[in-house]
Amino acid sequence: MRMAEGVTISEYLIARILDQGVRHVFGIPGDYVIGFFDRISKSPLQLVITADEQGAGFAADAYARMKGLGVVCVTFSVGGLKLANTTAQAFAEKSPVLVISGAPGREERLKNPVLHHRVNLFSDQLRVFERLTTASAELSDPETAASEIDRVLEAVLRDKRPGYLELPRDMIAVVPAVQRGNRPMASPVVGTGTLDEAQSEAAGMINAAERPVILAGVGVERHGLLGQTLGLARKGNIPLAATILGKSAIPEEEPLYMGVYGGLVGNEEVSKYVEGSDCVIMVGAYLSDLDLGSLTSGIDQGKIIHITADRVTIRHHVYPGLGFDLLEALSGAGLNRHEAGHVPYASRQRLPDGVVPDTPVSAEQVFHAVSQFLEEKDVLIADVGDSLFGTAEISLPCPFISSAYYASMGFGVPGAVGVQLACPEHRPVVITGDGAFQMTGMEVSTAARYGLNPVVIVLNNGGYGTLRMIADGPFDDIHSWNYAKVPEVIGSGNGFFARTGQELAEALNSARRSKEFSIIEVPLQRDDSSPCLRRLGMAIKRRL
Amino acid sequence: MRMAEGVTISEYLIARILDQGVRHVFGIPGDYVIGFFDRISKSPLQLVITADEQGAGFAADAYARMKGLGVVCVTFSVGGLKLANTTAQAFAEKSPVLVISGAPGREERLKNPVLHHRVNLFSDQLRVFERLTTASAELSDPETAASEIDRVLEAVLRDKRPGYLELPRDMIAVVPAVQRGNRPMASPVVGTGTLDEAQSEAAGMINAAERPVILAGVGVERHGLLGQTLGLARKGNIPLAATILGKSAIPEEEPLYMGVYGGLVGNEEVSKYVEGSDCVIMVGAYLSDLDLGSLTSGIDQGKIIHITADRVTIRHHVYPGLGFDLLEALSGAGLNRHEAGHVPYASRQRLPDGVVPDTPVSAEQVFHAVSQFLEEKDVLIADVGDSLFGTAEISLPCPFISSAYYASMGFGVPGAVGVQLACPEHRPVVITGDGAFQMTGMEVSTAARYGLNPVVIVLNNGGYGTLRMIADGPFDDIHSWNYAKVPEVIGSGNGFFARTGQELAEALNSARRSKEFSIIEVPLQRDDSSPCLRRLGMAIKRRL
Repeated sequence: MRMAEGVTISEYLIARILDQGVRHVFGIPGDYVIGFFDRISKSPLQLVITADEQGAGFAADAYARMKGLGVVCVTFSVGGLKLANTTAQAFAEKSPVLVISGAPGREERLKNPVLHHRVNLFSDQLRVFERLTTASAELSDPETAASEIDRVLEAVLRDKRPGYLELPRDMIAVVPAVQRGNRPMASPVVGTGTLDEAQSEAAGMINAAERPVILAGVGVERHGLLGQTLGLARKGNIPLAATILGKSAIPEEEPLYMGVYGGLVGNEEVSKYVEGSDCVIMVGAYLSDLDLGSLTSGIDQGKIIHITADRVTIRHHVYPGLGFDLLEALSGAGLNRHEAGHVPYASRQRLPDGVVPDTPVSAEQVFHAVSQFLEEKDVLIADVGDSLFGTAEISLPCPFISSAYYASMGFGVPGAVGVQLACPEHRPVVITGDGAFQMTGMEVSTAARYGLNPVVIVLNNGGYGTLRMIADGPFDDIHSWNYAKVPEVIGSGNGFFARTGQELAEALNSARRSKEFSIIEVPLQRDDSSPCLRRLGMAIKRRL
Repeated sequence: MRMAEGVTISEYLIARILDQGVRHVFGIPGDYVIGFFDRISKSPLQLVITADEQGAGFAADAYARMKGLGVVCVTFSVGGLKLANTTAQAFAEKSPVLVISGAPGREERLKNPVLHHRVNLFSDQLRVFERLTTASAELSDPETAASEIDRVLEAVLRDKRPGYLELPRDMIAVVPAVQRGNRPMASPVVGTGTLDEAQSEAAGMINAAERPVILAGVGVERHGLLGQTLGLARKGNIPLAATILGKSAIPEEEPLYMGVYGGLVGNEEVSKYVEGSDCVIMVGAYLSDLDLGSLTSGIDQGKIIHITADRVTIRHHVYPGLGFDLLEALSGAGLNRHEAGHVPYASRQRLPDGVVPDTPVSAEQVFHAVSQFLEEKDVLIADVGDSLFGTAEISLPCPFISSAYYASMGFGVPGAVGVQLACPEHRPVVITGDGAFQMTGMEVSTAARYGLNPVVIVLNNGGYGTLRMIADGPFDDIHSWNYAKVPEVIGSGNGFFARTGQELAEALNSARRSKEFSIIEVPLQRDDSSPCLRRLGMAIKRRL
């Protein structure tokens, strides 16, 4: 939308958000932002009020991952600064979230510098968010407000990273005298010479390779590159693996798909295949220490073609400014078809049920049960810790999201709220530990309020299981809750306590049928964990 | 403690914390900090593990207000950034909190820049906390680590504001080759000429005044100036008022104490007296817009003597560097005794009970009931909103804390945890709204875990009552919880639903006798509020 005559700054901002297909704004009101909340509530956008701002930030991040943009709106300082961590997560994991914060009016700051919610300088919050976002602006000048909104929003959509807009409350209803906005953004120009040279070099390298492999990362999902990535794979008959953040980027039915690569969380056979490859084509893949098992990658840099949004690296040199265009160019022409040798298909090796109906379930059995429970229309959200490690190994018929790199606990339940509002046809299923649930699990209240029905599985081992592997002490223990009684506090929802395989199966079935949210507490032995976490524990012991 | 031979950086840090009389460290472990947690757990410091880092930050702030220093310790980014808001509160309200964050080791950052929990640059978190603290340091150099610890800790204790220490995990066990620390801090020197001149001017102004008044702020409590402030008041027979943040600074039994001053939250008679005074001696008092009712102060700058920790302002000129020394000097000599005329004693006008046993209680009646319930050994913690406004007007026999200026919701319940661990002989009583409880109220879990028994009164009007006064909409509504059932989730504690005056009295009495925490839900009419909030509402309507 171009800014029309008589349009206020808030109307313009709301219109630009609607342009992106966004229909929900997460947040909590406060006096510096309530005027803008009032205007949002009179627009087609639905306000989603969470229990705490942290929940709103996580929900907006999940919404962004599903829908391409998420918006969270809060008040100055006491709201905004509570979003520092969730915004950092969106930055680290490339999730396009727009953070909007109310702020004291420009006029009142001059009249009375001791306004409530102020920290030190009025600019402190803006300075904090400059570090945590790809673009930020204070909408304090009517002349530039519209173009600043455009600039920040376009950076968010381009970089798939959060942006920040600060809206002083005396600017909400301002109609700029000069109507601007929607300046066409100058795209960085890369000469065709660069693309030709990189394409020729990369194609030559792939053709010369005996066993090339594609490693798909989170960028495939964020930048919508599934078609191009599969095109390249099929053209060259090149098998694919995914990083844990990209786990649901490639559908598991794809015959060329092997499974998750990564030192700790990945499958051993897949790791061997990737690290034994003589040409690894990485697409939007960022290998963190969690992927690599806190060890140096086993992939030789001299064998890598790494394609990201803003640079391509081949072996030890860089083509700056070149991006995913190379992917398209590569699947175009000049690529030989490879004969794949023995390719492992880890992700499709469905493991036997192994759940004995009337004995206590183990962590490993819970993950298998979840794998079998999941349907195509579900979205699995794994919280941090063994919830993630265990999920890495199971077969998923559905999309998957997690704070797999930034690893912030508590994303699960509020993430489910964001997912189901973004895609009402999807059913969110959350796997979370007891520690993560205690941080944000009461956001099931938000699910209840807005008629959502996520299934939340709480793996209760009474502590921070991953940390116990590193240093075991009472500081790793968590106060015991009766998670299944949370619905009584909320006034709706279903609570289940599932000790045995039979009880878990029944709870999952009841949850599947219910129109309300469900919490299924599964008590685990203190030292029980997924096979992946056990491997992690052994790796740590070897290092110590 | 001076750093001894063979002392590690962690041992030095722990020893310096113990030196200050601190016995508890609030936080949640993570892999970058767990080595330090392990060392803390082997020291006389007790680790207090909260449900979420936000709870740890608020608890440490309350602990600091009671004990002179509070410590919160968390992991990198996913822990640290969750403390941005609670640290900002400590900064704004002058609470001496030491924030310690683990961080990736210096070595591993070089080997693998893609470590989990990283946002953008490894320095991002340090840069964020530089804005929110009075001093900060990264303990990355063994040569300077001890002196940096001293520098930050001394700034925290001097400025009564938060400080930040970042401890890379490969520094935890390092023993510096050169043992340093405890450099004596150079105090800024103010010439005696400055003190003499200011003392002479101030004493002259007070003596010439017909109706001087002292306005005591939060600084009186933070800097331990009660004796000196009362000394000045008694010497000159000068009545005292307090700002809301300083509400419990002056004991209410003090015959010269009038009550709380401040446009919105204060008593009308007190306001008239202060604003009609021809000499207002402000001691560590900072008037925010909440004190002033979002209006300009009614105190004429030409009649003010303002004494703070680092400057004295008399009328329109400043004595830089001069601090509370002037207070001591003023009560020394040369001060006339005034004849006080009619002095209002608002805070001691105990209101009639007015609670009819078997009809629903009103908000106003709840505040009176709490006033009568409180004992000298209690500490009242008011959360933000009407919990604070209503508390401003009641008589308190006990200390009082609140986020009265920064106004961050959710301080109440975790604050009670901090208060009772700091002062086990005190019983915390929390007044909170339903909105604030939903943010952090599940920290009653931490109270249960550590054997604490706060009394938590939840005023449930189903929404953000203060905001409804400004703009009423569904975004001001809160999803209804059965607060009295929270103890069933926690597995201990008492839950009460108190609709009538009789039920409230019984619940308070049961809670008083219990060794476990109590939650008392009081359902209120949607539009019921304290008289103070009603005045606020009318003031807002007049402005609109």
